[in-house]
Amino acid sequence: MKNYIQAEEWNIIEEGFDPHLNKISESLFSLGNGRMGQRANFEESYSGDTLQGNYVAGVYYPDKTRVGWWKNGYPEYFAKVLNAANWMGLGIRLDGEELDLNLCKVTGFKRILNMKEGYLERSFNAELASGKQISVTAKRFFSIANDEIAALHYQLTALNFSGKLELTSFIDGDVKNQDSNYDEKFWDEVGRTQNDSGSYLTMRTKKTDFDVVTGVKTLVFTKAGQSQLSADTAVKDKYLAELTAVDLTAGEAVDIYKIATNLSSQNYDSAELTTSATAVLEAAVLKGFTALLEEQAAAWATKWEEGDIIIEGDVAAQQAIRFNIFQLNQTYTGKDARLNIGPKGFTGEKYGGSTYWDTEAYCIPFYLSTAPQEVSKNLLVYRYKHLEKAIENAQKLGFDKGAALYPMVTMNGEECHNEWEITFEEIHRNGAIAFAIFNYIRYTGDQSYLKEYGLEVLIGIARFWKQRVNWSEARQQYVMLGVTGPNEYENNVNNNWYTSTLAAWCLKYAVEATEIVKAEDPARYQEIAGKVNLEEAQEFADWKAVSENIYLPYDEEKGIFLQQDGFLDKEQTLVSELPASQRPINQKWSWDRILRSCFIKQADVLQGMYFFEDDYDMESLRRNFDFYESRTVHESSLSPCVHSILAAKLNDGEKAYEFYLRTSRLDLDDYNNDTEDGLHITSMAGTWMSIVEGFAGMRVRNNQLSFSPFLPEQWNSFSFNIGFRGVQLKIKVTRDDITIVNPAKTMMDINIFNQLHSVPAGETVIAWKGMAV
Amino acid sequence: MKNYIQAEEWNIIEEGFDPHLNKISESLFSLGNGRMGQRANFEESYSGDTLQGNYVAGVYYPDKTRVGWWKNGYPEYFAKVLNAANWMGLGIRLDGEELDLNLCKVTGFKRILNMKEGYLERSFNAELASGKQISVTAKRFFSIANDEIAALHYQLTALNFSGKLELTSFIDGDVKNQDSNYDEKFWDEVGRTQNDSGSYLTMRTKKTDFDVVTGVKTLVFTKAGQSQLSADTAVKDKYLAELTAVDLTAGEAVDIYKIATNLSSQNYDSAELTTSATAVLEAAVLKGFTALLEEQAAAWATKWEEGDIIIEGDVAAQQAIRFNIFQLNQTYTGKDARLNIGPKGFTGEKYGGSTYWDTEAYCIPFYLSTAPQEVSKNLLVYRYKHLEKAIENAQKLGFDKGAALYPMVTMNGEECHNEWEITFEEIHRNGAIAFAIFNYIRYTGDQSYLKEYGLEVLIGIARFWKQRVNWSEARQQYVMLGVTGPNEYENNVNNNWYTSTLAAWCLKYAVEATEIVKAEDPARYQEIAGKVNLEEAQEFADWKAVSENIYLPYDEEKGIFLQQDGFLDKEQTLVSELPASQRPINQKWSWDRILRSCFIKQADVLQGMYFFEDDYDMESLRRNFDFYESRTVHESSLSPCVHSILAAKLNDGEKAYEFYLRTSRLDLDDYNNDTEDGLHITSMAGTWMSIVEGFAGMRVRNNQLSFSPFLPEQWNSFSFNIGFRGVQLKIKVTRDDITIVNPAKTMMDINIFNQLHSVPAGETVIAWKGMAV
Repeated sequence: MKNYIQAEEWNIIEEGFDPHLNKISESLFSLGNGRMGQRANFEESYSGDTLQGNYVAGVYYPDKTRVGWWKNGYPEYFAKVLNAANWMGLGIRLDGEELDLNLCKVTGFKRILNMKEGYLERSFNAELASGKQISVTAKRFFSIANDEIAALHYQLTALNFSGKLELTSFIDGDVKNQDSNYDEKFWDEVGRTQNDSGSYLTMRTKKTDFDVVTGVKTLVFTKAGQSQLSADTAVKDKYLAELTAVDLTAGEAVDIYKIATNLSSQNYDSAELTTSATAVLEAAVLKGFTALLEEQAAAWATKWEEGDIIIEGDVAAQQAIRFNIFQLNQTYTGKDARLNIGPKGFTGEKYGGSTYWDTEAYCIPFYLSTAPQEVSKNLLVYRYKHLEKAIENAQKLGFDKGAALYPMVTMNGEECHNEWEITFEEIHRNGAIAFAIFNYIRYTGDQSYLKEYGLEVLIGIARFWKQRVNWSEARQQYVMLGVTGPNEYENNVNNNWYTSTLAAWCLKYAVEATEIVKAEDPARYQEIAGKVNLEEAQEFADWKAVSENIYLPYDEEKGIFLQQDGFLDKEQTLVSELPASQRPINQKWSWDRILRSCFIKQADVLQGMYFFEDDYDMESLRRNFDFYESRTVHESSLSPCVHSILAAKLNDGEKAYEFYLRTSRLDLDDYNNDTEDGLHITSMAGTWMSIVEGFAGMRVRNNQLSFSPFLPEQWNSFSFNIGFRGVQLKIKVTRDDITIVNPAKTMMDINIFNQLHSVPAGETVIAWKGMAV
Repeated sequence: MKNYIQAEEWNIIEEGFDPHLNKISESLFSLGNGRMGQRANFEESYSGDTLQGNYVAGVYYPDKTRVGWWKNGYPEYFAKVLNAANWMGLGIRLDGEELDLNLCKVTGFKRILNMKEGYLERSFNAELASGKQISVTAKRFFSIANDEIAALHYQLTALNFSGKLELTSFIDGDVKNQDSNYDEKFWDEVGRTQNDSGSYLTMRTKKTDFDVVTGVKTLVFTKAGQSQLSADTAVKDKYLAELTAVDLTAGEAVDIYKIATNLSSQNYDSAELTTSATAVLEAAVLKGFTALLEEQAAAWATKWEEGDIIIEGDVAAQQAIRFNIFQLNQTYTGKDARLNIGPKGFTGEKYGGSTYWDTEAYCIPFYLSTAPQEVSKNLLVYRYKHLEKAIENAQKLGFDKGAALYPMVTMNGEECHNEWEITFEEIHRNGAIAFAIFNYIRYTGDQSYLKEYGLEVLIGIARFWKQRVNWSEARQQYVMLGVTGPNEYENNVNNNWYTSTLAAWCLKYAVEATEIVKAEDPARYQEIAGKVNLEEAQEFADWKAVSENIYLPYDEEKGIFLQQDGFLDKEQTLVSELPASQRPINQKWSWDRILRSCFIKQADVLQGMYFFEDDYDMESLRRNFDFYESRTVHESSLSPCVHSILAAKLNDGEKAYEFYLRTSRLDLDDYNNDTEDGLHITSMAGTWMSIVEGFAGMRVRNNQLSFSPFLPEQWNSFSFNIGFRGVQLKIKVTRDDITIVNPAKTMMDINIFNQLHSVPAGETVIAWKGMAV
């Protein structure tokens, strides 16, 4: 855990330069706009410790899988989002001396991530070995107003000397992924152009043949006016540079601007990439840096207007929630149904940048409430488009008749993780994908999604569960063997309660969904049934049989669900008994010891009770919460938020707040000692859930919103906006009451503290805690 | 399964050249002498499919482990026996045309492995592209009389032309392991010498710094007399050659001899390797090929005298058992306590050439009966010498206080496998190592082994089991969680019956062994107790508590031990219901499907009932055999022998014979479609056990041998020799009787068909089946 980020409501601030923290800061200060993004690497040379990262969404490479022993069904490759060309590189030589903060005396170093307006600013003074002193201010952003554009303004002032600045402005495409399995480079250069409009380097990925052009226009101004740049005549493969030299006068600034674009063959004809990039770039250059930045600030203002959460009385909590919301919005905008939300977004390479169940279980609720409905829908459609591949994936493992197993990790629908205990066994992901359909419809009321896309997915998933269980003669029940639950500190267990519960629900919901489509649109139903060869009578009977008679382990004596068979055979120790020196156990203990301990990485039974909360009474929830929470080490970023929400429901405000801080400041405080690899983007949606579903107690039941709020002691109030079925509600929770503004043109029924309130159009309702039944 | 090897009692014969079978034959016709060995690669160039293999025992390299996701406790490397320099290479050019069987018309091709005398002979006629016809006979061997020597005689005759033969006789040290994880080469050249005595190339392994000199003397004779060779002046790294050119006359043979030596820094001072090699080589050259081959034949005659099994009436079975015995003796001679028995011996790279539990569970019984006692003792001492590393290995996983976990795979005592489900969980190996001590003492009566070496090992192992179990509050018994049994088609199971049974036995035996040493040699006991910090009272109490109250799963209704918790939850299908198209399942099914099926790779419960057979009555054995045998696919080479022995015990002669054939001809008939990777050396000891323990029913009880033989219907008789406590017994089993010759100077009590026979010195006893009680 670290604590060097200064708390401020709208800004992330680092003061002073500590090279040991540089990779963490590179993650924290990352920029992105859903289409592309970048770690906060320095523009100029840096010979110190750094993880260089530039990414273009959806551009991946099937890196050959690395395992010790191959077994049938292992995926051939691990797809990963690629480190792409670095557009913002600047080589800066002062009278022949290279600027490199690793070799300078650095003072006044400050990095600011301005979340309100969406830019990164870095300023510092540096004294070079020669004694030359300069000051630099660099500001850059990835435009969310035009997601094909990024821009940089780099201002350098000579402080104690006059001399010559030799500038190399370059695009470096000769990059590789640090996590490449065989140190392979994934890009070939396929084109380069330099003309008045800019420099254009086109790279092509090996095997997947994505073409990406990076176009950059560099402008340099001194007091004497604009300097001309000329193409570097020393040709280097995968690298394109422009050069200029300007005279520096002590006390006078040189202003360097780079306006950049990244276009890929996903959206443009390969043959016309450079032409298209030229047009995009010329338009942006014409606008200029300042106007582009104004557009950016305006676009972010709209985002915040829609999705901000305001916390009064707790700056650290305020900063944290904004950081989480900001990074989520930088990562995914929902404009493109081919894209998804990588666990590290554009902030690192780990986890391959691909799609996990995090999207369905954690991100969908956030986007449902804070973005247009289309955004969540796109995330669902993404999986619909991968249905065929999910069926193929199941076939590879021996399933048939249209059974679909969605991959644990994917870029294009194919499985690309490579641990058998995850790939083959962590199948609960299939349930989360079905649950997201249910959740989307519950929230939006958009029943039509079922017949458009959802039903086919639900049928494929139901077929999988039906085949994945087997009848146990010994138990006279269906059992599910060889499973890994969300708690990855166990694997290959039998009858994981969460997975089996989810499976039973999926089977039931698939039947219900079919009945709905059949009733509402019989023709469409016939069409789907024909397409998927549904043998309704037999299949429904099978699904019901499994759903109604699946074995769900339960301990009568303790009155708790058992995470899996034999969980109580483990030595029952509590997290509170674990010495601090032993934590995190995934860094201190052998995998063997972790597997055999009762310690839980991430909510497992509790995740199920969160999904299906209405099926369990409060006493049952409390028993399970008390049992499992005391054994949970939360070494997955996805864990604390669920515990926070459930603690809030159980009126344990202190615990709820503790888990909130843990989830919201996970990266800012480097809780798990791994922020340098990148940010935990998907868990940031869980942070949002902790406030909205946890503290505000928001639920959707029977097509109505309901709230059951409480205010953490440390706060004076919190407020947020929620989009619900076309209405933007404004909600504010204080110590004693909740205020809801309904700005819509129709009345809205809202359940507050278990009482129904009809909030007239354009009006405000205030409910007091004392009113609670 | 293939069937191209001709059955002959003393020879393995391949007739006709089929390039598709070449890698299989390269394995089958492998040569070795315990110190070094070689696949049956061709001497001359071969551009077709081949797996080149030359090996020097004990010379290994720590190849960096390859896994997808790293976890704490994973071994850093996978040690492997290295592909070493090829000493027998010949480049043969006929009037400028290279001899390469892949590019010739080959006729009359024949390979013979002469097991009686221990050599490989290959002969063929070849017509080159030019139309030139030649005939070749090549004979080579690895001397077991002097295990530093190998020799080759290559005779080439021009059939339809006269011309020029350009010969390159080379040593090629520029080799790599096909299974290298990162395509790395493991050798550097550190020395080369060429003089009249021969060519000497010295290579050094990276990291481990083993030096190996390969010295070769090449002699060439034509009708005109001996040809001189000269050093190749074109210097190539890691490669040393001599050249000559001779005139060929149609119909006249050229004789090429290569006498070779491999010496390593394990046995010689590095600085004197070449000097030593020169001495060894000069002495061998002085003897000459023919005399060396005579020595070889004589040495093998002794081996066969001691260890042959003669089967009358079944040539295929006779050939098979001799092949198994021959390969075992080629692999391990027991002269060097630092060496062990790699699963593939000198016949391939797979499994790293390292030590597995196969040694203790399968090979020890073979060497106990067929080799001097010292050989088995050396195998035990090998583990004693690794005790410290086994304690370190356990520490890495979180065990302490002297608990020892022997590695699953090792070269130098360190763990070097890299699947967690094997390394961390397949801990029954620890039990097999303890059992081998018990078995050795039971067989030899050498109780002193305990105080010399055994006790320390048993204490370390007992401490491990004590810590590896945990108390289950739920069961009020000790349980053993997260285990993989011998049946690797399950893993991470709880309460594997075999492992827990073995653990309980180890704990009991450790106490017994301590009591023995204490009683026999109190001073030595004090010494050991002090060295290992034995807290006798507490530790013994703990060990007894676990041993007496460990949970062993049992199904009352079926009257069988359960392989592990939940085994009966699996869908119970039988191997007989598996279509042939689905087998072997490890090639046809996904790993997921295999794990979840009830099919068993290898004897598991039955392995335990074999080890501890006196603890179970025949009815219990029959129930368990019937249940598990019908679910066992025998896709481990180690499985059929145990089933054969138990079937014999259950008087199911047909099954016993069926399993015998499967184990004995596993490689000759390429049963599992993997002989091309190398032979299954360690399972060959199981083949021997099938006859001696299975058909002959040999056991050691109360310091006496006992027999309870039966003769497979297909055979007329079988006979074998057994060394037991200094006496070489000759045993012959016919349809109706068993004859035992006691050539010793003292009487021997032998139990036959449950009746005690006192066999006087130098006499023969014949017992009839009818005499059985």
